[in-house]
Amino acid sequence: MSNAVIQQLLNRRSIRQFSGEPVREEDLQLILKAAQQAPTSVNGQQVSLIVTRDKDTIRKIAEIAGGQPQVAGAEVFITLVMDFNRTSEAAALAGEKHLIERSAEGIVAGAVDIGIMLQALQTAAESLGYGTTPIGGIRRDPGAMIELLGLPAKTFPLVGTTLGVPAATRPQVKPRVPLDSFAMNERYDTGKVSAGIRQYDVTLRQWWDEQGLGTMPTYSTSTASYYKTVYFPTIAADLTRQGFLFADQAD
Amino acid sequence: MSNAVIQQLLNRRSIRQFSGEPVREEDLQLILKAAQQAPTSVNGQQVSLIVTRDKDTIRKIAEIAGGQPQVAGAEVFITLVMDFNRTSEAAALAGEKHLIERSAEGIVAGAVDIGIMLQALQTAAESLGYGTTPIGGIRRDPGAMIELLGLPAKTFPLVGTTLGVPAATRPQVKPRVPLDSFAMNERYDTGKVSAGIRQYDVTLRQWWDEQGLGTMPTYSTSTASYYKTVYFPTIAADLTRQGFLFADQAD
Repeated sequence: MSNAVIQQLLNRRSIRQFSGEPVREEDLQLILKAAQQAPTSVNGQQVSLIVTRDKDTIRKIAEIAGGQPQVAGAEVFITLVMDFNRTSEAAALAGEKHLIERSAEGIVAGAVDIGIMLQALQTAAESLGYGTTPIGGIRRDPGAMIELLGLPAKTFPLVGTTLGVPAATRPQVKPRVPLDSFAMNERYDTGKVSAGIRQYDVTLRQWWDEQGLGTMPTYSTSTASYYKTVYFPTIAADLTRQGFLFADQAD
Repeated sequence: MSNAVIQQLLNRRSIRQFSGEPVREEDLQLILKAAQQAPTSVNGQQVSLIVTRDKDTIRKIAEIAGGQPQVAGAEVFITLVMDFNRTSEAAALAGEKHLIERSAEGIVAGAVDIGIMLQALQTAAESLGYGTTPIGGIRRDPGAMIELLGLPAKTFPLVGTTLGVPAATRPQVKPRVPLDSFAMNERYDTGKVSAGIRQYDVTLRQWWDEQGLGTMPTYSTSTASYYKTVYFPTIAADLTRQGFLFADQAD
């Protein structure tokens, strides 16, 4: 048994080229409203969105993200902000101190909530015919994003998403590591994970070849090229500047 | 213009009571496969799932999460594992070192990917009529989860989700902070966020009263009660033990 939701998820692709047609304002409002119902840790609602429609600002974000044409070409850019300013003010209203942003638990729970919201936004947008791509590249210079968007203390821009009408040519769905090396039964299976990498290197190589992109690296090479360096090297310092601390705390 | 996806997202609720009916294996496979197509940073696929069907193990997870009946009553529990073991092995195959798990960027990107996957799993499951609730409570004792699921170095259990057939009575959709205090235009607006908290305290109070739960705390009180403490105080230490380090690194 399948359905429209499953089919949409199975066919999901990052869309990096846009037609230039506008995002309808009523669609955008529906996307935001639908995504807002996504779950959030302890109902803290520690995610806020900054919706950028201004083309000059979108171009600035594209530059901050490393000069990404897929960002510059988007009609709308949404920045997902981990927001412990809201919860801190709520705690103050209740006459309590607020410690969570100065803990590893707070940062981890906040980042997971950001991911939840990102997927909800993208799912809603895609259902209305729009295309999106997550943009982690804003973490190349979080300080610049903080200044551009006027983000206060206890908030942090963790990721963004483009939004626009897809160009006529839709990219093919990209294969994933074998399902049994991704979703394991009862216990982690290092053998399956190992075998999955080797099989996926072959699968992805064939897929790139089919796309006419024979020079693209396969999984191992591509992953190594990213993860042999820490490509965004200021996250801890930028978090600290915003009032966060990744540490355990006894109460 | 709305559609089935938007309607599902707008009506989303955490489901904490299950009928006890089984999750069909073909549905579970479809949920896993659909969710796997969710986006992932640099196509690293640094998320693995451990699917628990064994009822004894589910009961153990419920205990680890603090004695949660909603976990013990689930038919299936899925643990979302931040997995830099996979990428590390991929890097080794390519003959490169792997630094990313010893960086703030790696942990943050991994946690965002976990959230993306969580929402994809829940969206797929709900479309097939199942109910879910995210379970951050596994972070109460990550070490116990690591042992129970046999998680190797460079992996970490960040969050889980229950899965089951909802009981007959479906809870009402819970209101959120005002849309204009959640999704802001162009720049963060501290005034809107402040006003939103105050308005939401009233909205949520009315909603609890309508549910016949007049003793439930409103937003400010509830948030303060969580965030005045660091309720899961071992996350940084547990990450370190698994080989992670939350730090900036120059290459």
